[in-house]
Amino acid sequence: LGQTPPEPPFERIAILGLGVMGGSLARALAALERRPYVTGWSPDETERTAALAAGAVSAAPSEWRASLQDAELVVLAAPLRASCDLLAEVVPAAPGSATLSDVASLKAPLARVAERAGALDRWVGAHPMAGSEESGFAASRADLYRGARVWITAHGDAKERVARVQMLWHALGAEPVAIEAEEHDRLVAVASHLPQLAANALALVLEREGVEPAQLGPGGRDMTRLAGSSPEIWRDLLEHASPVLVAGLRELSAEAARVADLLERKSIDALVELMRSTRTWRKS
Amino acid sequence: LGQTPPEPPFERIAILGLGVMGGSLARALAALERRPYVTGWSPDETERTAALAAGAVSAAPSEWRASLQDAELVVLAAPLRASCDLLAEVVPAAPGSATLSDVASLKAPLARVAERAGALDRWVGAHPMAGSEESGFAASRADLYRGARVWITAHGDAKERVARVQMLWHALGAEPVAIEAEEHDRLVAVASHLPQLAANALALVLEREGVEPAQLGPGGRDMTRLAGSSPEIWRDLLEHASPVLVAGLRELSAEAARVADLLERKSIDALVELMRSTRTWRKS
Repeated sequence: LGQTPPEPPFERIAILGLGVMGGSLARALAALERRPYVTGWSPDETERTAALAAGAVSAAPSEWRASLQDAELVVLAAPLRASCDLLAEVVPAAPGSATLSDVASLKAPLARVAERAGALDRWVGAHPMAGSEESGFAASRADLYRGARVWITAHGDAKERVARVQMLWHALGAEPVAIEAEEHDRLVAVASHLPQLAANALALVLEREGVEPAQLGPGGRDMTRLAGSSPEIWRDLLEHASPVLVAGLRELSAEAARVADLLERKSIDALVELMRSTRTWRKS
Repeated sequence: LGQTPPEPPFERIAILGLGVMGGSLARALAALERRPYVTGWSPDETERTAALAAGAVSAAPSEWRASLQDAELVVLAAPLRASCDLLAEVVPAAPGSATLSDVASLKAPLARVAERAGALDRWVGAHPMAGSEESGFAASRADLYRGARVWITAHGDAKERVARVQMLWHALGAEPVAIEAEEHDRLVAVASHLPQLAANALALVLEREGVEPAQLGPGGRDMTRLAGSSPEIWRDLLEHASPVLVAGLRELSAEAARVADLLERKSIDALVELMRSTRTWRKS
């Protein structure tokens, strides 16, 4: 007697945005044994055609409203500002019973839009800690979310919907964890946006010093991979950047200067101690 | 008519040090179709036993001098200071015809030792741009050097030996490139040591801000992987740190502060422009 796979929590899903995030979600859903009916939309016709050709979506109408028909779940997978704009329009356009979600990496701006649109009981935000420095459907992959932490943010009124959204991410092999929107955005500013800008700052220095990417070892490559991230995706996130991120950058600046001082003074024991403490943290 | 694999350029090789670097070299040599006879030595008996048990070396005497018998190539695979100390002792102890090499990530200190020992015509330094934040033989692997850039540094008098050492690294799937020692050390200070210390500085900030490693996404994990590097390996490198590294850290500090300023002033266009330029560099 084999185990029956669980009912998919949503049978009809619309994904608005078919880049790395939306495209990977569509591919992952298409790979499920009990595959939901997924419609996809992108403002870019080539992305819609690519998603259809890859079998990631069953339909990809050119007008986003058409993709919402009978949807039980609508996922906004656009850059932050476009997701906010779309959410305001999707609330009245989607079936009244549909759960509304997104995959943006800041949650408070979307929570505010959901509140203004009177849809806090329908919105369940999600932020998968996964992505790529590449962009577009071509960079999407079915296993992008496997093993990834997915932060889930919702108002108390959306409780039953939260359970279903979590179930969906579980089915894709991800690890959903509930968190409050403001707390999420503070955490992500430090855990995700600060490393991104640190990579940009480091890359600027390496370029100025005449280092070519081909001269980097695996460490240098890892430390600059994010320097290749899409500036367009980041534009919106930077516009919503919190003071926490600014403070983190100033701390990083101070730490880099302190390490330079220690090195100049040949305070090797202090540097070794510093490396010991970061090693302990990193392996914890 | 199949192609005969090239004669291995060295038939007897001694490796002093069986950690990630020496252990991986031994494993890679053991995987060659025409396998040279490799002896290994480590001050740590458990490492010698592990290397023997893994079939990475044919013999692992407890005294390093014993491992040099009939060696055509001696590779020092110890931390920088130990490699310098060993090189001075190996020059008189190794067969007079043996080529002497190492895998340390700074080359000028070893070149100075080789010169003082009157062995500049026998020493061919190598620095594979590969490694691991883990340490010890347990973290070694046969494919560590596959595809890796290997900087080769030698005096003009060692020309014929350089060709053979390069041939050896080619046989292991690596990409040897000749470079002058001082130039190498300047490049590596920026391309390798600066990213290392940037990872430590960033990790310090993340830890202080209460971020746990499990809360990091792939970007944050990449940006802090090096924060787990061995402080003991780095002690020697930090002692030999060049002013170039100190200057690079100060530049990084200034760039982090500048990004903070731009963010605070909401100069989003300037930040997007900055990200565009690092993206262009990274993908070049």
